[in-house]
Amino acid sequence: MKRGISVSEARGLVLSATPRLGLETLPAGEALGRVLGEDVVAGRTLPPHDVSAMDGFALRAADLAAAAPAAPAVLRVAFEVAAGAAAARTLAPGEAARILTGARMPPGADTVVRQEDARREGERVSIGVVPRLGENVRPAGEELRAGECVLAAGRVLGPAELGLLASLGRTIVSVRQRPRVALLSGGDELVEPDGDTAGGRIVSSNSYSLAALCRRVGAEPRYLGLARDTPESLEEKLRAGLRADVLVSSAGVSVGDRDYVRPVLERLGAELVFWGVEMRPGHPLVFARFPADGPLVFGLPGNPVSAMVTFELFVRPALRKLAGHTALFRPTLRARVGETLRKAPGRVHFVRVRLERVDGGYLARSTGSQSSGVLRSMSLAQGLLVFPAEASELREGETAVVQVLDDEFFLSEEPGF
Amino acid sequence: MKRGISVSEARGLVLSATPRLGLETLPAGEALGRVLGEDVVAGRTLPPHDVSAMDGFALRAADLAAAAPAAPAVLRVAFEVAAGAAAARTLAPGEAARILTGARMPPGADTVVRQEDARREGERVSIGVVPRLGENVRPAGEELRAGECVLAAGRVLGPAELGLLASLGRTIVSVRQRPRVALLSGGDELVEPDGDTAGGRIVSSNSYSLAALCRRVGAEPRYLGLARDTPESLEEKLRAGLRADVLVSSAGVSVGDRDYVRPVLERLGAELVFWGVEMRPGHPLVFARFPADGPLVFGLPGNPVSAMVTFELFVRPALRKLAGHTALFRPTLRARVGETLRKAPGRVHFVRVRLERVDGGYLARSTGSQSSGVLRSMSLAQGLLVFPAEASELREGETAVVQVLDDEFFLSEEPGF
Repeated sequence: MKRGISVSEARGLVLSATPRLGLETLPAGEALGRVLGEDVVAGRTLPPHDVSAMDGFALRAADLAAAAPAAPAVLRVAFEVAAGAAAARTLAPGEAARILTGARMPPGADTVVRQEDARREGERVSIGVVPRLGENVRPAGEELRAGECVLAAGRVLGPAELGLLASLGRTIVSVRQRPRVALLSGGDELVEPDGDTAGGRIVSSNSYSLAALCRRVGAEPRYLGLARDTPESLEEKLRAGLRADVLVSSAGVSVGDRDYVRPVLERLGAELVFWGVEMRPGHPLVFARFPADGPLVFGLPGNPVSAMVTFELFVRPALRKLAGHTALFRPTLRARVGETLRKAPGRVHFVRVRLERVDGGYLARSTGSQSSGVLRSMSLAQGLLVFPAEASELREGETAVVQVLDDEFFLSEEPGF
Repeated sequence: MKRGISVSEARGLVLSATPRLGLETLPAGEALGRVLGEDVVAGRTLPPHDVSAMDGFALRAADLAAAAPAAPAVLRVAFEVAAGAAAARTLAPGEAARILTGARMPPGADTVVRQEDARREGERVSIGVVPRLGENVRPAGEELRAGECVLAAGRVLGPAELGLLASLGRTIVSVRQRPRVALLSGGDELVEPDGDTAGGRIVSSNSYSLAALCRRVGAEPRYLGLARDTPESLEEKLRAGLRADVLVSSAGVSVGDRDYVRPVLERLGAELVFWGVEMRPGHPLVFARFPADGPLVFGLPGNPVSAMVTFELFVRPALRKLAGHTALFRPTLRARVGETLRKAPGRVHFVRVRLERVDGGYLARSTGSQSSGVLRSMSLAQGLLVFPAEASELREGETAVVQVLDDEFFLSEEPGF
């Protein structure tokens, strides 16, 4: 087991211990946001034949070669083709067919003139424009051809992909499983939100913020409840989470008297990978894995901010990797520091900041108390400013990297065009 | 009714017709992403009294004023305070109390020394450091004080806000309702994805892509099915959607023979606000409202890309406004155009593009066929490049505004620090 390692070493150890989950088969309508587990090959050509892109008249462009507004060509309206109808008879020279958007072009016709450009009088239609050959026709295979790979394994299924699958008649689809996360909190001082806080007990809020963080990243949280401050209670809860893909505890990982996470994990067969990361908040983070089959185990510090920050930095990328994503990390940007920051060298500090757009760049300002117990300054934070381990001062106006935390940060109150 | 208006006029008409929905009361655990409908006032002070931030020894800082590594102060360990236990007896000068993280400071104690900095021997503890007064103590009210407004109405509830609500013991919360959207498609040429496409029928994919777009923005889609090409069938479907907040049809809004949306809507009591927006794809967009109570009605063009683009530009901001958000719009950025684009002046074109990071900026390249029937180029698109109405050429290297469509666009394959 390693102790007191850097953030990047810890990140590397976590991600190299993190596999991609297996596949499952889902109704396509439930697959939004999932990662495709198969190459989707078109079983049909779309459109299956030439179709009209407009309501108008299907005709032979050659018949209009000499048309002009003052001297329109006059064609005979031979028949109508409705959308969804089978193939019509062949169009002869000098004929036009009334056609609706999406309807199959009759054999012989090569072009569609929009009805706005035509004047119909009984069985005749007068057209004073010269269309381009093939105008307003969607050729067979314009969208895709049978046998083509339309979506490759690894694609994230968004709205357009689900539309494409529907258009191919695919109602079920193979996708990467979504990670199941077992959450537990522990400590005799903790009660649930509806519990009695008399005598100094405090509400266990971590399971609520961590469950929400899981949902945000597409994982499926299951809350196992509060463990008491005994090895037996902790072991019971941990055992209940062994069939999850990830087990996240926010209990008992300080160096204090209640430090029996390590022996309990070892008794269950887990191998401790590291304990302690040179960061603040979040130093007493524990990461363990099982040599054979078992969940990844994150022991997050119990302070509400420390738990959220270590989740963001280590658990979230692991959950994205498990789900099959390649973009594992939140966006970062460079921002000017709004006020001079100081610390002792040695640990990276993640400073909760709000970001203001100034002069085409960003200005980062602390959200107030950086105590790891103050969730309110986490709630106000749009990002975490990275105050590097070796640095002891970041002067006002210097630039630093900020990891954006707010999912809605890039949305705008102005349309932008 | 207005006809052939600009994108910005249409957007203004839609948003000024869009109210904010009313409030509902939800279990806090189901409120992720919702907009808070009430000011949340703290009913308790947190922490309720001074607590230890570490496992260690609570003591009077004055007793250590002369301590040094070579000459540690020796205090008597008078008692222990466990986390969650009630107030202990008063600490006398010369005494220390063993204390755990989160436990209440005993009266008389003002400072905590971490156990790493102390050496215990039976009833005595030797400490060779001089702590700062109040070190490792979280003062009462550090997080918040009873009576303070902790979260104001209008806040979006993310993970930290749900943690805060839990810590206040709030298990239910008042939030803005989420929009219910009724979706219908129509056209005799359409079948569902498991339907028979013989004879030129095509799959109705719009309801699948539009339902996914609704889910992405936190709205609740309900699919009413396919209307046939008769006024009766359309009226029946529209009536089934009248109790939704928004009714989205992707059927029968061309200027063609099947154009009976307008009379049917008027018979139902709707007032048509506009018909036709000077944009491509998406020109035949219809927007209607009910003078008294009734849904907003969007008649989207039936082509798969036109339906998605008009949803993005008009329906999505309306859904965000209904849900109580103030950031209604997707992000935009400026990008250099990757290849010269040409069009006739008159309509804004929204060009499907991929965005590449080049030299600290973005380069936008078309995703291929811009036919409004080609969903595949929509699926590849990360954004819509805005080719302004009055322009006829955008030269390679010129910059243009791009609206980002991909929810994961800003995520990264690299951690960034």
